[in-house]
Amino acid sequence: MTYCVGIAVDAGLCFIADSRTNAGVDDVNTYSKLYRFSIEGERQIIVLCAGNLATTQGVITQIKRDAKMNAAQNILNISHLEDIADYIGELSVARQEKHASGSNTFEASFIVGGQIKGHKHNLYRVYAAGNHIKISVSTPFLQIGESKYGKPILDRIIVPESTLDTAAMCGLVSMDSTMKSNLSVGPPIEVVLYTRDSFSSERHYVFEESSDYLRNVSRAWDEKLRAAFAGMPPIAWSGKWNEADLGNR
Amino acid sequence: MTYCVGIAVDAGLCFIADSRTNAGVDDVNTYSKLYRFSIEGERQIIVLCAGNLATTQGVITQIKRDAKMNAAQNILNISHLEDIADYIGELSVARQEKHASGSNTFEASFIVGGQIKGHKHNLYRVYAAGNHIKISVSTPFLQIGESKYGKPILDRIIVPESTLDTAAMCGLVSMDSTMKSNLSVGPPIEVVLYTRDSFSSERHYVFEESSDYLRNVSRAWDEKLRAAFAGMPPIAWSGKWNEADLGNR
Repeated sequence: MTYCVGIAVDAGLCFIADSRTNAGVDDVNTYSKLYRFSIEGERQIIVLCAGNLATTQGVITQIKRDAKMNAAQNILNISHLEDIADYIGELSVARQEKHASGSNTFEASFIVGGQIKGHKHNLYRVYAAGNHIKISVSTPFLQIGESKYGKPILDRIIVPESTLDTAAMCGLVSMDSTMKSNLSVGPPIEVVLYTRDSFSSERHYVFEESSDYLRNVSRAWDEKLRAAFAGMPPIAWSGKWNEADLGNR
Repeated sequence: MTYCVGIAVDAGLCFIADSRTNAGVDDVNTYSKLYRFSIEGERQIIVLCAGNLATTQGVITQIKRDAKMNAAQNILNISHLEDIADYIGELSVARQEKHASGSNTFEASFIVGGQIKGHKHNLYRVYAAGNHIKISVSTPFLQIGESKYGKPILDRIIVPESTLDTAAMCGLVSMDSTMKSNLSVGPPIEVVLYTRDSFSSERHYVFEESSDYLRNVSRAWDEKLRAAFAGMPPIAWSGKWNEADLGNR
């Protein structure tokens, strides 16, 4: 499986992806799921992938080829980020349909984010059906893959006013929770931070399994969480939990 | 949707269930998903339900009817808890098959736990297919329904040595995380605590939406979690995140 999250705050964008891919428990491999397409000073586009690896690789290959061949419509010349989401959706559906037969489907989903000069930075999620949604003020993040384990912390912490560092730390904690609860998500973990209006992705981090930093984040969060839990007020437990509160069946 | 969790610690068992049921967003209702079948001093059996409401109600009705009619095999006379899990699986499959047609399935799953005199307390999960699993030392809890949002905190906190109060508080926090991230899970929240070898369920709590206690737990956890997050060491972020750590593509 996969877990990828994109976070859009006022200050910019944060992308985090794991790198574990499996086609059965005895076929676990590491593939990057984070791709960057950019023209320095003009546009920065980041694509995260989840789902069938043959489909996502096919889509990324086609995106690269279109850009290299300078196709009429390619990721480096499409004028709006939303149209890039649409373009990726079309490539994905075409690739899925080519191989699908009966109940064998090869679904994939994508997060596309970035900024094109003259436009605001933004973030889209492309569904397997090829359609897409974008972030909203109340939900300034998008997830693909094994998204549920890591959603609660994002729900609590991320607001549009969060700093990029907060977004990145929250994304890493969300990734850590997912890895703890689901063995099919694992390092290396890739992080890209994009500062609004910079049109450059100066910050790209890869944390290997052996990374001290990743281990420190994991250990610190585990300790903090246990301490937080241990600090839950016990008063109410013995005090307010009395017969008056009880329902009877 | 539904979220139910059963936790088995050395000290006993803890069961927590939400009560929201929906068949589409405009048909949201409240149904209890927690049932108790007991002979004081001899056996205490708790059943939690998730999935298709027609199936789960049908199964619970049949369990009650069999017990009332003193059927040859009923929940009050089956000698092993594991066989009760099997019996519930059979009722569930029969009910599902009666109504299934083509791709219309009416799946349901159950958590069955408790203690029968002469045996250890235990906890089983009954799948839609009718088969079942029990808890293990490394995973002393079972979940049904919307289980992923609330799994990370259980993974971190619950061990066989946890007290019943810790189990209950952790279950409530797990429920709170699930409710925050998924609107289809909601109060009233039912909690039953069973003390090992007591053969009596003295502690049954129902927390309504208006419950001060539930709100306090939710607020306290939110504050603790935010404080925990705010307390994450920033040092590494600026200090260790340097070029030396970076991967290049």
